[in-house]
Amino acid sequence: MKLNIALLAGDGIGPEVIDQAVKVSNAIAKKYNHEINWKPALTGAAAIDAVGEPYPDETHAICEAADAVLFGAIGHPKYDNDPSAKVRPEQGLLKMRQKLGLFANVRPTFTFPSLIDKSPLKRERIEGTDLVILRELTGGIYFGKRGREDNGDTAYDTCTYTREEVKRLAKKGFELAMTRSKKLCCVDKANVLETSRLWRETVQAMEKDYPEVTVSYEFVDAVAMRLVQWPSSYDVMITENLFGDILTDEASVISGSMGLMPSASIGNKTKLYEPIHGSYPQAAGKDIANPLATVLSAAMMFEDFNLKEEAQAIRDAVNKSLAEGIVSEDLAEGGKAYKTSEIGDWLVKNI
Amino acid sequence: MKLNIALLAGDGIGPEVIDQAVKVSNAIAKKYNHEINWKPALTGAAAIDAVGEPYPDETHAICEAADAVLFGAIGHPKYDNDPSAKVRPEQGLLKMRQKLGLFANVRPTFTFPSLIDKSPLKRERIEGTDLVILRELTGGIYFGKRGREDNGDTAYDTCTYTREEVKRLAKKGFELAMTRSKKLCCVDKANVLETSRLWRETVQAMEKDYPEVTVSYEFVDAVAMRLVQWPSSYDVMITENLFGDILTDEASVISGSMGLMPSASIGNKTKLYEPIHGSYPQAAGKDIANPLATVLSAAMMFEDFNLKEEAQAIRDAVNKSLAEGIVSEDLAEGGKAYKTSEIGDWLVKNI
Ligand SMILES: CC(C)[C@H](C(=O)O)[C@@H](O)C(=O)O
Ligand SMILES: CC(C)[C@H](C(=O)O)[C@@H](O)C(=O)O
Repeated sequence: MKLNIALLAGDGIGPEVIDQAVKVSNAIAKKYNHEINWKPALTGAAAIDAVGEPYPDETHAICEAADAVLFGAIGHPKYDNDPSAKVRPEQGLLKMRQKLGLFANVRPTFTFPSLIDKSPLKRERIEGTDLVILRELTGGIYFGKRGREDNGDTAYDTCTYTREEVKRLAKKGFELAMTRSKKLCCVDKANVLETSRLWRETVQAMEKDYPEVTVSYEFVDAVAMRLVQWPSSYDVMITENLFGDILTDEASVISGSMGLMPSASIGNKTKLYEPIHGSYPQAAGKDIANPLATVLSAAMMFEDFNLKEEAQAIRDAVNKSLAEGIVSEDLAEGGKAYKTSEIGDWLVKNI
Repeated sequence: MKLNIALLAGDGIGPEVIDQAVKVSNAIAKKYNHEINWKPALTGAAAIDAVGEPYPDETHAICEAADAVLFGAIGHPKYDNDPSAKVRPEQGLLKMRQKLGLFANVRPTFTFPSLIDKSPLKRERIEGTDLVILRELTGGIYFGKRGREDNGDTAYDTCTYTREEVKRLAKKGFELAMTRSKKLCCVDKANVLETSRLWRETVQAMEKDYPEVTVSYEFVDAVAMRLVQWPSSYDVMITENLFGDILTDEASVISGSMGLMPSASIGNKTKLYEPIHGSYPQAAGKDIANPLATVLSAAMMFEDFNLKEEAQAIRDAVNKSLAEGIVSEDLAEGGKAYKTSEIGDWLVKNI
């Protein structure tokens, strides 16, 4: 296969972890006779510094032309406590999601047997957890009208959803549920929000098209509890943008392996793969970050190209590295901590 | 002291747990020579059934005239999967909050040494946790304009905040922080939402009035993670209505003692006390619910009347009951499970 992959390293540890995913992907390409053309492009604070824009048109053109996008992380502390900054790295992220139409963020949370004791949760609570949250990514309060009134003393944000937006995301949820345990949980706040009532009635109307799927409806506050209490009771979950932002992050820490969790963002045409962790600026440039979430994001990418053997080869190498203790600082627990680049090299050698 | 307390038992286990708090409060009144006049009033599904309205005007008049309100829980399963129901118990709750001006929901999360192993979190993660979330309760997306357009195919909700609303809540936060560790965390989503930027800039401007308080600003998604990872790193937190709904519930389960967590909702005039758990309809009428959250809510009430000894007497009795294993089903762990009413009686005897 011949693949054109846009490569958006971004900020902080982004470039370092992306490097490892590239090395590993190249090793896979070599072993399985594929050809990958990497198309690097600027994004985030790095792009603001270079061209004054966090998601430049040129970057967008490269992403649109590519078969997939591999993304690192964006965000820089110099923007964090300055709510009034006119141009911010996160705007690039939102613009990218919107312009590429990446309406579904797919976030698995699963446990690695060898890492289960890293979880803040007790073993018996977390064991067997294997869930996927589908977060709507191009609608809701992220993209509604917002502004100020009364000389700046009143602020507002608008959350909007159309039935089509809900359907499109829910369809992915039903389809994913069909390939798994056929359990789907729709997370909303239908006891308060009109948009949630639209979500709930739209999903209810779709149930008849997927008679094998058992759908439950839960309020976001209740889910925020149960995710900590009984995470293994969930399988596929669908939810709107802001709830998804909160719940996917909450879910990511229960496994204890945040540095290992990949994600995909899916549009009608483009797909983007990225680690769920952020740009972790304190570690930038130190070659100490954990590259596995990014490497596993590349595995998701191969999987979606229907290159299942390739994807599995990456996962096998990752599992082997964990089993043999070839781990970065965050997982080293007093043992030897390998550098980001050393882990990448080790994976390449073991593919 | 002579106290007029409005008594809103509500639905599900509400009446049973409220009964125990009344018994305990009466015992305290007797011991310390106070007089409590209880003014029962209808609310929730119970009120809909009786008068077609979840928060009747008569109930409001009773609450307004009272020195405080003691509240059970509301909610009934017959409304849960019917997003289109015209009258819903939750509307009563929201109407009550708004009409009584209960703008600050005060939700402590702390651990009981004897119950620490009930937490889904490992002991070393949860030990020492003692935090309070102040949730704004009468603004935001709960009370903004909402509706449908396009023949019902588009739904919207509006989140609005004024600078005054933020100040009022933040003031309570700063004041509370001054009585505790002088650490305040403002939780928002200022990288996306305009209302959050108003929150952040308003709180930033107040910092100079409380030079001893150290304020941190964190995004709600990051907080949803850290609450599970390092809950003891938080002390006083302030946040807007919807984030507060999610985070207070998340926080409530980390202690492992959800059935014990009290709360207060504070207005300019009225204060309301309630357990944080819901109406738990499956247990209604069975005399098996844990009454301690409601009993401890009554303790918060005495504390706020500046009756500190009385409040402590309740807490001491509760601690003693836990130490001696006089616990309900949820805490019994194979040992003897006491009935709701038996626990109330035991507490009365030990006051
Ligand atoms: C950086 C921020 C705008 C973004 C979001 O809220 O979507 C991030 O938290 C995420 O989840 O990708
Ligand atoms: C019942 C519901 C409307 C309510 C809320 O969201 O405020 C509840 O979850 C709460 O936290 O008291």
